[in-house]
Amino acid sequence: MKVATLTTDFGLEDWFVGVMKGVVLKRAPRVAIVDVTHGIPLGDIRAGAFALWAAFRFFPAGSIHVAVVDPGVGSARAALAVQTEHCCFLAPDNGILSFALRLEPPRSVRRIENRRIISRPVSCSFHGRDVFAPAAGFLANGGTLDKLGPATEASVWLPWPEPRQHRHGWRGEVVYVDRFGNAITNLGLSQLSDREQVVSKTQPCCAVALRNGRQAPFGTQYQEVPPGCPVVIVGSTGLLEIALNGGHAAPELGLKVGDRVTLRAALGERVRGKRARLA
Amino acid sequence: MKVATLTTDFGLEDWFVGVMKGVVLKRAPRVAIVDVTHGIPLGDIRAGAFALWAAFRFFPAGSIHVAVVDPGVGSARAALAVQTEHCCFLAPDNGILSFALRLEPPRSVRRIENRRIISRPVSCSFHGRDVFAPAAGFLANGGTLDKLGPATEASVWLPWPEPRQHRHGWRGEVVYVDRFGNAITNLGLSQLSDREQVVSKTQPCCAVALRNGRQAPFGTQYQEVPPGCPVVIVGSTGLLEIALNGGHAAPELGLKVGDRVTLRAALGERVRGKRARLA
Amino acid sequence: MKVATLTTDFGLEDWFVGVMKGVVLKRAPRVAIVDVTHGIPLGDIRAGAFALWAAFRFFPAGSIHVAVVDPGVGSARAALAVQTEHCCFLAPDNGILSFALRLEPPRSVRRIENRRIISRPVSCSFHGRDVFAPAAGFLANGGTLDKLGPATEASVWLPWPEPRQHRHGWRGEVVYVDRFGNAITNLGLSQLSDREQVVSKTQPCCAVALRNGRQAPFGTQYQEVPPGCPVVIVGSTGLLEIALNGGHAAPELGLKVGDRVTLRAALGERVRGKRARLA
Repeated sequence: MKVATLTTDFGLEDWFVGVMKGVVLKRAPRVAIVDVTHGIPLGDIRAGAFALWAAFRFFPAGSIHVAVVDPGVGSARAALAVQTEHCCFLAPDNGILSFALRLEPPRSVRRIENRRIISRPVSCSFHGRDVFAPAAGFLANGGTLDKLGPATEASVWLPWPEPRQHRHGWRGEVVYVDRFGNAITNLGLSQLSDREQVVSKTQPCCAVALRNGRQAPFGTQYQEVPPGCPVVIVGSTGLLEIALNGGHAAPELGLKVGDRVTLRAALGERVRGKRARLA
Repeated sequence: MKVATLTTDFGLEDWFVGVMKGVVLKRAPRVAIVDVTHGIPLGDIRAGAFALWAAFRFFPAGSIHVAVVDPGVGSARAALAVQTEHCCFLAPDNGILSFALRLEPPRSVRRIENRRIISRPVSCSFHGRDVFAPAAGFLANGGTLDKLGPATEASVWLPWPEPRQHRHGWRGEVVYVDRFGNAITNLGLSQLSDREQVVSKTQPCCAVALRNGRQAPFGTQYQEVPPGCPVVIVGSTGLLEIALNGGHAAPELGLKVGDRVTLRAALGERVRGKRARLA
Repeated sequence: MKVATLTTDFGLEDWFVGVMKGVVLKRAPRVAIVDVTHGIPLGDIRAGAFALWAAFRFFPAGSIHVAVVDPGVGSARAALAVQTEHCCFLAPDNGILSFALRLEPPRSVRRIENRRIISRPVSCSFHGRDVFAPAAGFLANGGTLDKLGPATEASVWLPWPEPRQHRHGWRGEVVYVDRFGNAITNLGLSQLSDREQVVSKTQPCCAVALRNGRQAPFGTQYQEVPPGCPVVIVGSTGLLEIALNGGHAAPELGLKVGDRVTLRAALGERVRGKRARLA
């Protein structure tokens, strides 16, 4: 069964997500529709891009990923259909696909314009229902991308915030805060040396410096530090996350998206000695 | 694959929605169950009626729509199954189907009473699970409406608040506030003259008067007014909505369900001149 | 079509639930995945155990129930797969299955460890995605429990709080508060005498004593007491619930999980006389 996923800022209070699914099912009765999330903060394209990037890789090959965080709905921004090696993305041309397409480069991009596929009339405020859902249903039912509209290219790209090397390690930033209060950074395994990667599986070998001179030692699970203490783990996205054993790191440590953090390498001993002070 | 939709005030914190789906799937293993919303405010039958009206038209013909906002659960109110031309509704007889049935008149109405179909015993507080879900599963699995119980008629109808013509235009009211803070009114395209409908696609030609002497000009997209300014668009339901470019109209303008608004026709020039004052 | 259910504290704001479903669908393209709830309070194993207990019985035989409230993720706690007569449970070995397994005793228990089934590498913080979802997909696709890993036994059990008989009736406690504010107790029909069970269908015959000397009479529906008054009904779980006609019992009466309540039997007349005083 074909899979279509939905990532939006529509919330679940109203009927918006439900009718998108109705429109998809009208055109593709046998598709499995999965919500990635509808809780993206209103109009936060960057958060939507991050959630899509974190999620799409875990779906079956051939999945159709619809991402609608669309503060410019009704303006002249294009509606895009993007074919990659393993899947297809449908989204407004506002940068929301930027991070996903770093992993899956576009092979073909079309504007979704075919009036025989999209709904008529198209409302000025709900292209999720009138443009993207019909296109998703069309593709899920076996339609091909080239029928959706003319070839084009994505015109808006959000830059991925690359970590920068620094005298004592790497400088990065917080890129997402999840419901558990974990602060996900743009620092990843590639910022750890080979030795650190091996060592870090069994003991702290480096640390992330936070504000106020605090440091979070590297660990492999939340419980490696005393309750209430911060710890840095390789999160489920592959990026380093700052967590708090039994707490919510971001609100309790005052971390928010965009805040700088510094990865200090090879501090194993020093960090271990400092643990008590972090509480 | 048959589609069953759910519209309730059960929320998603507990297991209530999940078990309704379990009960449907027990009787109809191949049905696609779609949530319209479970975020209807507790016991707000009118909001449930509105959400159902806004949503059901976008689902495949033959869909089974279950709507349970049911403050009178356990009382003598009937459980209804309503067949229309294109679909079927299951709901308590409390008015929640009123708006949907204006679009799809009932052809046959039955009380859901057959003890061989509904669960035994029926709990006094969860007919969603014990009455409506079994009936939905029965129908989704090919059962027919007449088996559910004796013929009856819906006895409770919520009046649709019709706009009233007025010396300077039309008087209406706010009928729903969505998650984006858009205030949906009962004013629609039929309250605009032909000339206004054409003109309104390219320029403001009329306005909705709000409280405090404010006016919101007519537009075709949120961005047509400066950020922070109100605008009236034909919303995705076909009704006029008061929105705020980049903001939340209802809380910021103090609009709530039941508030009066007046559509003043052919005010294009005056309204355009006043835009700056609306901020 | 096979059914897999999900009960977690992951919330719906992030992509966590979506990717679990993606992983299940990768391995079992034709499974129907149903959310029981993802709104369990963070790390509240007892609430998760209660929700699972309340829900699983209503799903088709053969369903696979995945329950992940897992504050110890990444520690040495085992990941369990439990076969019972009618279904299968996948969950961390932390007691979350305790209440469900009282109804469905385990027939076979395995540790989920087979590296050919679970994801590689396993993240240290998201076993829902990397361990439990792959195992669920494997089983939904026809795999057998014995392939998941070696035989074991659940090692953590939460005790069900049994009501205690008391001079004037039964002493129990609040075990769950639902979204409606209903306070579900551990008192059930087995704490009512035969006579009371019959009588209670038509009139209050006993009452639950609350704090401050208040009493809630027994009823069969919320409307049996005046608006704003408390009433005890046999809830949809089969347990006695304290509700408020038209209100939210738990916040308004100051009831929370763990609070003691006492069932006083055969107080029909006295309670009826006292109703007015309860408001």
